Amino acid sequence: MRYSTLCYIERDGKYLMLHRVRKKNDVNRDKWIGVGGGMLEGESPEECVCREAREETGLTLCAPVLRSVVTFVMEGDEGEIMFLFKCADFSGTLSDCDEGVLEWIPKEALYGLDLWEGDRIFLKKIENPGEFFTLKLEYARDGRLLKAVENGTRGLIPERKDS
Amino acid sequence: MRYSTLCYIERDGKYLMLHRVRKKNDVNRDKWIGVGGGMLEGESPEECVCREAREETGLTLCAPVLRSVVTFVMEGDEGEIMFLFKCADFSGTLSDCDEGVLEWIPKEALYGLDLWEGDRIFLKKIENPGEFFTLKLEYARDGRLLKAVENGTRGLIPERKDS
Repeated sequence: MRYSTLCYIERDGKYLMLHRVRKKNDVNRDKWIGVGGGMLEGESPEECVCREAREETGLTLCAPVLRSVVTFVMEGDEGEIMFLFKCADFSGTLSDCDEGVLEWIPKEALYGLDLWEGDRIFLKKIENPGEFFTLKLEYARDGRLLKAVENGTRGLIPERKDS
Repeated sequence: MRYSTLCYIERDGKYLMLHRVRKKNDVNRDKWIGVGGGMLEGESPEECVCREAREETGLTLCAPVLRSVVTFVMEGDEGEIMFLFKCADFSGTLSDCDEGVLEWIPKEALYGLDLWEGDRIFLKKIENPGEFFTLKLEYARDGRLLKAVENGTRGLIPERKDS
């Protein structure tokens, strides 16, 4: 089981998105995602997301807010749990990222990008300033989203007709 | 880094507490805690806490609510992240637990028990139906709580004078 963090850094109605086009053997190749990475020993989720944001963007997150815990499973993979943050309070100057190209994307343009299907679900949910939520996303080997369950046993998102 | 779940099961103003007196080489020996255990591959936090509650108590949790993510660090230890749940909606009949003695404890009697110092912090916080929170707890080797940080960089709980 892998454990990681991901952050959507927000400014003027835009999110800082990372177009993953530079990292070799990247499961996220060509996808647009937020910034983040794997948890290190002894780190809290906040400490991890601050370190990863600094490494990947040069920015210092001041008050990242944990909005969700997302469990990913995919056939043939050990699975991953991701701590999902949003952060509108940061400082510093944007630097280059060796995993891809960083770009401020207006929120209304977000859904036109090449996103993971499950990311569309949590990106919509973190737009509401409301409640913390959990999500379990089950993917097929080919990247199709098979199932999405919100808040454990409660609030099941119906399975897709074509799956 | 270890990853685990813990649940405080609630009924009629009481919590189901586990007095850890049966497990060998138990870091929690003689302490009173909730029920839970280590995450398995592919499990979401909810799936883990439901499985652990069933194994340890015989009860079936219907709607466990994730109230906190708690990071524990202790000198000389790899550290642990614990998903903290509360659950008032469950079914089944209480069975015996091979890790200790299960007992329904009235909430007002809770703080007279032998609890970890950090547990007193989150037990008070989960009493308020309010917001999700995170906590990082730093312990000395002898079990003294050295530091507690709420919600990452925000809302620091002051360090104790005697530490």
